[in-house]
Amino acid sequence: GDTERRHRPTVWAVWGITSAILTGDALLALAQEVLLDSNSPHRAAAARLLAEATRHLVRGQVQDVAFEQRSDVTLPECLEMVSGKTGALISASAAIGAVLAGAPAAMVNALSSFGAQLGLAFQLVDDLLGIWGDPAITGKPVFSDLRSRKKTLPVTYALTHGGPAGRELARWLAGSDMPGEAGLRRVAELVEAAGARDWAAAEAQRRIVAATAALAGVPMQAGPREDLIAIAHFIVAREV
Amino acid sequence: GDTERRHRPTVWAVWGITSAILTGDALLALAQEVLLDSNSPHRAAAARLLAEATRHLVRGQVQDVAFEQRSDVTLPECLEMVSGKTGALISASAAIGAVLAGAPAAMVNALSSFGAQLGLAFQLVDDLLGIWGDPAITGKPVFSDLRSRKKTLPVTYALTHGGPAGRELARWLAGSDMPGEAGLRRVAELVEAAGARDWAAAEAQRRIVAATAALAGVPMQAGPREDLIAIAHFIVAREV
Repeated sequence: GDTERRHRPTVWAVWGITSAILTGDALLALAQEVLLDSNSPHRAAAARLLAEATRHLVRGQVQDVAFEQRSDVTLPECLEMVSGKTGALISASAAIGAVLAGAPAAMVNALSSFGAQLGLAFQLVDDLLGIWGDPAITGKPVFSDLRSRKKTLPVTYALTHGGPAGRELARWLAGSDMPGEAGLRRVAELVEAAGARDWAAAEAQRRIVAATAALAGVPMQAGPREDLIAIAHFIVAREV
Repeated sequence: GDTERRHRPTVWAVWGITSAILTGDALLALAQEVLLDSNSPHRAAAARLLAEATRHLVRGQVQDVAFEQRSDVTLPECLEMVSGKTGALISASAAIGAVLAGAPAAMVNALSSFGAQLGLAFQLVDDLLGIWGDPAITGKPVFSDLRSRKKTLPVTYALTHGGPAGRELARWLAGSDMPGEAGLRRVAELVEAAGARDWAAAEAQRRIVAATAALAGVPMQAGPREDLIAIAHFIVAREV
């Protein structure tokens, strides 16, 4: 885990890992209580959505941990992992208000798809920033994801679709040397030469298009629709 | 954490801490899903009870962790910690079926109190077994709780009500020596000389009496009432 996020120390770095885990568990329990204290006749369905999203999130996290020990992760597997780890939470966040309000299934499904696609776009951009982001803006160390040998989406693309540059990247990942900044810049160049930077940026754009398209089929006031689309575009344009 | 429970290896010892934490989170999410998939019109109330119990459990765990760094924990504080860490879960377990079935508040409250008192009795017996339990039966190492300098209920009683033996125990706890089995036996003797063994056994009995009394005021068929009381008596009589 990072010791800083958005230029502020992370909970575990200040209070320890045990306190950070317990804080997360308490917040999740509290979120369920808040939902279930609502007067909506649909509160049970909303709480169920949150529980289901939590389970998918855990599944994605389990896959992420398992991938650390594997050298044969495919791009579809990596996308499925991200759909759980990031997509499930953003999908549930987008849809849960509609569930609580008793919106028709078509609206709930549209918002759920919007969030799932947005989650993938978010992670793709996050992975790009983890390699090429400006540390002064992201608040993360330079090349932080490469330093920790994370099998992010761009790295997985490079390994599976990257030709000679991808194979050189695979050899480096299989080793254990700890390069300095110059060495990590060379690794980043390999990922880029493998076409992974272009792929990830284009894939993020495609996911935003899909997110926007998911909203097109359902009736929605112009204001909220524009707000949701603005959030989607912010996510790919962000630098933090 | 213990590497074995009930003579079987614990999840973290086999699969690692990360997997154990994720497994627990997944099971909790799944428990909420199962509750919320019920056809009962009271499923939201049942899910709320589980979320609330989870929050109290986390609070108790946070207190337990905080107590490790403190030498001035009072007995009421320690009882409050156990009410959260152990009592909340057993209380919710006892009451949640009644909530789901739409039982009257008096019945839910009686079962909730029954479980809360049972939880305290369970922990008192667990703490006694952690010091004086037979390793061949408990499956835990001999004097395991003393070895890890845990501020269990008997130890807290000894420290706060134990006279000279309690003060000698406090001096040992404040130090850092790692005694062998003979040394740990001497520490156990201090806890006993401080009156903590007798207190914990008597307190467990008082909690079982209180648990049984909590059921007395509500109408219940003889069979289920006898089963609940049998569980309560098993808890204080158990050796594992």
